[in-house]
Amino acid sequence: MSAKGPKHAQPSPISIDEHRARVATAQERMAEERLDALFITSEDNFRYLTGFNGPVWHNPTRPRYLVVPRAGDPIVIVPTNHAATAARTVSWIKDVRTWIAPAPEDDGVSLAVEALEECTGQFNRVGAELGPESRMTMPIGDFLRIKQGIAPAEVVDGEWMVMKMRMIKSPAEVALIRHVCQLVSDAFEALPGVLTVGDSEWVAAAKFQAEVLKRGGERIDYLICTSARGGYVNNSLGPTDRVLKKGDVLVIDTGVCCEGYFCDFDRAYAFGSPADEVTRAYETAWRATEAGIAAARPGARTADVWRAQAEVIAEANGTPLVKEGFGAGRLGHGLGLRMCEPPSNSPDDGTVIEPGIVITIEPGTRYDVQGKKGHEQRVLVHEEDVHVTADGAELLTRRAAREIPVID
Amino acid sequence: MSAKGPKHAQPSPISIDEHRARVATAQERMAEERLDALFITSEDNFRYLTGFNGPVWHNPTRPRYLVVPRAGDPIVIVPTNHAATAARTVSWIKDVRTWIAPAPEDDGVSLAVEALEECTGQFNRVGAELGPESRMTMPIGDFLRIKQGIAPAEVVDGEWMVMKMRMIKSPAEVALIRHVCQLVSDAFEALPGVLTVGDSEWVAAAKFQAEVLKRGGERIDYLICTSARGGYVNNSLGPTDRVLKKGDVLVIDTGVCCEGYFCDFDRAYAFGSPADEVTRAYETAWRATEAGIAAARPGARTADVWRAQAEVIAEANGTPLVKEGFGAGRLGHGLGLRMCEPPSNSPDDGTVIEPGIVITIEPGTRYDVQGKKGHEQRVLVHEEDVHVTADGAELLTRRAAREIPVID
Repeated sequence: MSAKGPKHAQPSPISIDEHRARVATAQERMAEERLDALFITSEDNFRYLTGFNGPVWHNPTRPRYLVVPRAGDPIVIVPTNHAATAARTVSWIKDVRTWIAPAPEDDGVSLAVEALEECTGQFNRVGAELGPESRMTMPIGDFLRIKQGIAPAEVVDGEWMVMKMRMIKSPAEVALIRHVCQLVSDAFEALPGVLTVGDSEWVAAAKFQAEVLKRGGERIDYLICTSARGGYVNNSLGPTDRVLKKGDVLVIDTGVCCEGYFCDFDRAYAFGSPADEVTRAYETAWRATEAGIAAARPGARTADVWRAQAEVIAEANGTPLVKEGFGAGRLGHGLGLRMCEPPSNSPDDGTVIEPGIVITIEPGTRYDVQGKKGHEQRVLVHEEDVHVTADGAELLTRRAAREIPVID
Repeated sequence: MSAKGPKHAQPSPISIDEHRARVATAQERMAEERLDALFITSEDNFRYLTGFNGPVWHNPTRPRYLVVPRAGDPIVIVPTNHAATAARTVSWIKDVRTWIAPAPEDDGVSLAVEALEECTGQFNRVGAELGPESRMTMPIGDFLRIKQGIAPAEVVDGEWMVMKMRMIKSPAEVALIRHVCQLVSDAFEALPGVLTVGDSEWVAAAKFQAEVLKRGGERIDYLICTSARGGYVNNSLGPTDRVLKKGDVLVIDTGVCCEGYFCDFDRAYAFGSPADEVTRAYETAWRATEAGIAAARPGARTADVWRAQAEVIAEANGTPLVKEGFGAGRLGHGLGLRMCEPPSNSPDDGTVIEPGIVITIEPGTRYDVQGKKGHEQRVLVHEEDVHVTADGAELLTRRAAREIPVID
């Protein structure tokens, strides 16, 4: 039994050596990209490059800055009351600068300008978190002041470069994602024993979270829990007071992390015997998932992984192959320190799949059920997480049951 | 019994009428501030102004935009697969525009430019989330493209205006915060019955979360859980594998929400009989909290609430009155749709307290314990949540025990 939970011993966290190697790789790429420094503010990039972590990110009062120079050790700039977090998690970084926050007139802005000015000079270019899917985690008014403060140095996107590194996972990263996928698979498989007709969606969500927590899930950051008769309406909805009845389908889709690394997958449950259209939709989504897993091989493109899934769905439903299949513009995505990170399994994403990539396979199908006021639209989405090796996809989750689990 | 949990019936969510009234007030202020439109991207501002909510914010792939014109109804711009969230939660808004995301080349950028151009013209000024403590929740490269796209209209901070509205809570908002404070008080009071010597911090954190979830807590976004012999090192640390022993103090500090509204408070527990220095520190923090609660009255300034607490601590410890008391630059803060929002109880915050304001009272004290290698520093922080009425502070949490609870 680990200190967290009863069953799975948790793999080691990412080592200091691995963090040092990541910084060294980033510095090589920075030279190619002609960047003097990287300016990092977001939880996942900060953690990826240094190991810095702690429950300090939910509070928007205080920002945190990381400056990675083209050569030499990173500079960590944090409020005084996060210095303990730095001491605990990034002891290998000696240059930790602090200020007493909140200080709305200068919340680390002049410290950031000073650190960046120490690095700039050769290329006069700084890479910041500006690109697709990025979230700069600081007040943007302050970012614009920093940008002005370091002029004439230019600020360009530097996140894509880091994200390309992040796409290829190390064995230590894969082990952590596999671990969280397995413990959440356990929690999903336990649900038929704890959910009952008459539970509300809220109660179902609470019971699921309890199963995850007792198995050692660290944080449940994302929780879809939605139901309707004969399927569900959309796979982006949270729990409500709706009470589960026979004839319903419930889906739970979750992002849980361990050591910062996420799983992202779902499971559906039928309350009472499923209607024929539910059985058919589940079969379609299950087969599309198989096709997606088979297509996720080195050398294929993410667009191929999309196409393999989309073709099964289009054929089963007699519908054309369109980007917006079941409402979303993709059928799976990258996974790691973010629950959703590049690449996207979409028809217009040309990322070549390499060994080490971890992606979700996430097909969905739309269908109609007969409601009181005529036809009502339903969706059914399946999702699994895979790690691509030289031999093809390794399943990190335990595969969804061949037929929809029934709760009576 | 509610659909969520056994004990407290949850108050009503914020009504459509209240959301309409918020937009109307924002529009009056926009005229005063000479703004043609507000451009909103963050979960809490989006929810405050419209009611839009759902578990879609954790995924950074897809942004969401809200445009509030100086007159007329807001415009919601969301990816197609979040249209169901809009239909469910902001049915009063008719103008919902969608695009198929992800579309890295144009993820709603031209839709945002178009909507803003429909509004600008009179003042040629748009208010965006740029100011202190803000978090613009979109790729900043795309924000800069939107900024350029609507030029010559200028983009200035518009969040502070919204935040000043948000500081004064309505009765419906106070009821939701009171509800979550009470259910988390129940969970804290249950802990001596479920925690035991030999639990790890992780296990203690999981047990606490289970207590919150079974009472109907919707989301546990923030969880500090840390311990050490004779106190703890810092109040921003998360759980580790450390096993709790007699002589330890454990603190749990949490931000839980219901209908988006947060509580934020902590409780400390002694494992075995507390040492004298723990008893003294607890007494100091308890008395400083009393002083802070008494000082939180209409007409006082947040700096006065800081001073009332800081004086008790300085006097008890024989230390000077400094901004960085126990490591943080303030002793409490605003609370609402963000766990931490303006104002700050800090010596340099001059916010005048008005009825309707909800703040935390959060004093802490530093002290030394004798460790194996000499003196080691510890902190002890107390936190309560109060709602200021015309008569003074109403406690929303149930007051911490007069003496530190002991777990044997």
